[in-house]
Amino acid sequence: MPVSKDADIEITGFGWVPDFVKGQVRDLRVRWALEELGMSYRTRLLHAAEPRSEDYYREQPFGQVPTYRDGDVQLFESGSILLYLAEKDERLLPRDPAAKARAITWMFAALNSVEPALLNYGLIKLFYGNEEWGKLREAGAREFAELKLKRVSDWLGDSEWLEDRFTVADMLMSLVLGIVEPFGMIDDFPNLRAYIDRATARPAFKAAFKAQMADYTLPAPEGMPA
Amino acid sequence: MPVSKDADIEITGFGWVPDFVKGQVRDLRVRWALEELGMSYRTRLLHAAEPRSEDYYREQPFGQVPTYRDGDVQLFESGSILLYLAEKDERLLPRDPAAKARAITWMFAALNSVEPALLNYGLIKLFYGNEEWGKLREAGAREFAELKLKRVSDWLGDSEWLEDRFTVADMLMSLVLGIVEPFGMIDDFPNLRAYIDRATARPAFKAAFKAQMADYTLPAPEGMPA
Repeated sequence: MPVSKDADIEITGFGWVPDFVKGQVRDLRVRWALEELGMSYRTRLLHAAEPRSEDYYREQPFGQVPTYRDGDVQLFESGSILLYLAEKDERLLPRDPAAKARAITWMFAALNSVEPALLNYGLIKLFYGNEEWGKLREAGAREFAELKLKRVSDWLGDSEWLEDRFTVADMLMSLVLGIVEPFGMIDDFPNLRAYIDRATARPAFKAAFKAQMADYTLPAPEGMPA
Repeated sequence: MPVSKDADIEITGFGWVPDFVKGQVRDLRVRWALEELGMSYRTRLLHAAEPRSEDYYREQPFGQVPTYRDGDVQLFESGSILLYLAEKDERLLPRDPAAKARAITWMFAALNSVEPALLNYGLIKLFYGNEEWGKLREAGAREFAELKLKRVSDWLGDSEWLEDRFTVADMLMSLVLGIVEPFGMIDDFPNLRAYIDRATARPAFKAAFKAQMADYTLPAPEGMPA
């Protein structure tokens, strides 16, 4: 079990989030990579509903989780942390320069070409559904998100993974695609459905998910259900 | 002058875009990196107003520019191409592992934590300003974009660059911040103003910008001003 109080690697995550966010917080990505590599880590837990300290903004200038620390290496941005970890092990990132660069291309694609459109729609659904602009924009935002899903689906075709083998990019892409899963958008694309299922069937993902859930140990804010 | 018809490296860009997009298209990022490194490249020009071919979607699954090709290396996503190029040369990316990983962290931050919020506001201003939802959302989207600017500004403080020296991350971040420059948002943050000016004063940026402008050689679509 990679979570260990005495581990050198420390990541931050949340000790409390609302239920509908569970499984979506980005420390899951880093936990998954660490599980794939069998590397132990400890967690430092923040409360999603409480303001970050000034100190934390020096660690993570946007106040988000996760951060990653191991000796003099101090990182943030899940994409960057995943790339840093994947560089250590051919199982997550091919050594061949052309294949490696392709995998990294897909990491950036997941985070810059796909995630913003999906998250934009997700935020409207989760937070702005009762605001007038949210109601007016919802269909257009969904259409734009669907177009991104279609592009990934067209690329993927009958392949198992984005390129010819599993890489760290498939971890990122499958979790990014999962952002719109609660809105029933994945089932319109059977190959994306199978792709996400294939990725999240990996024992390392299951262990990471379980570890993230186990860390939701902080009390709910006053007036909110635990 | 790195643009050369016989260069091995080929990138795609646009041969025509509307005026308000000039200077914002992402092949500028790649041209800048190639100029910093003194590497020659040739361009293949698409028309922004014409549909992409099916073949192009196999090269760039989202139909965007730029793509990058050099022998068996075929990439897309400006962030990925910049990282691939920066890996070749210490002038753009430190060799020290911890410093290198920090620079890469800031590349992902520019593209995943900053750009989506800025682009979201920019798109409302440029394309949805006359739609009801755009009018209703504009102030909120601006506020969210400003918060991202504030976070980068707070981090930067009096420093010249994001970390202790210029890296490829400063190229990306300065161009990403520039997305909201047309809306007068940068001048509220004097250190960001100076940061962008410092980055874009580099001769390599100027050469890249000039080369991008020089490639706008295709005719405007019928009915649109040249």
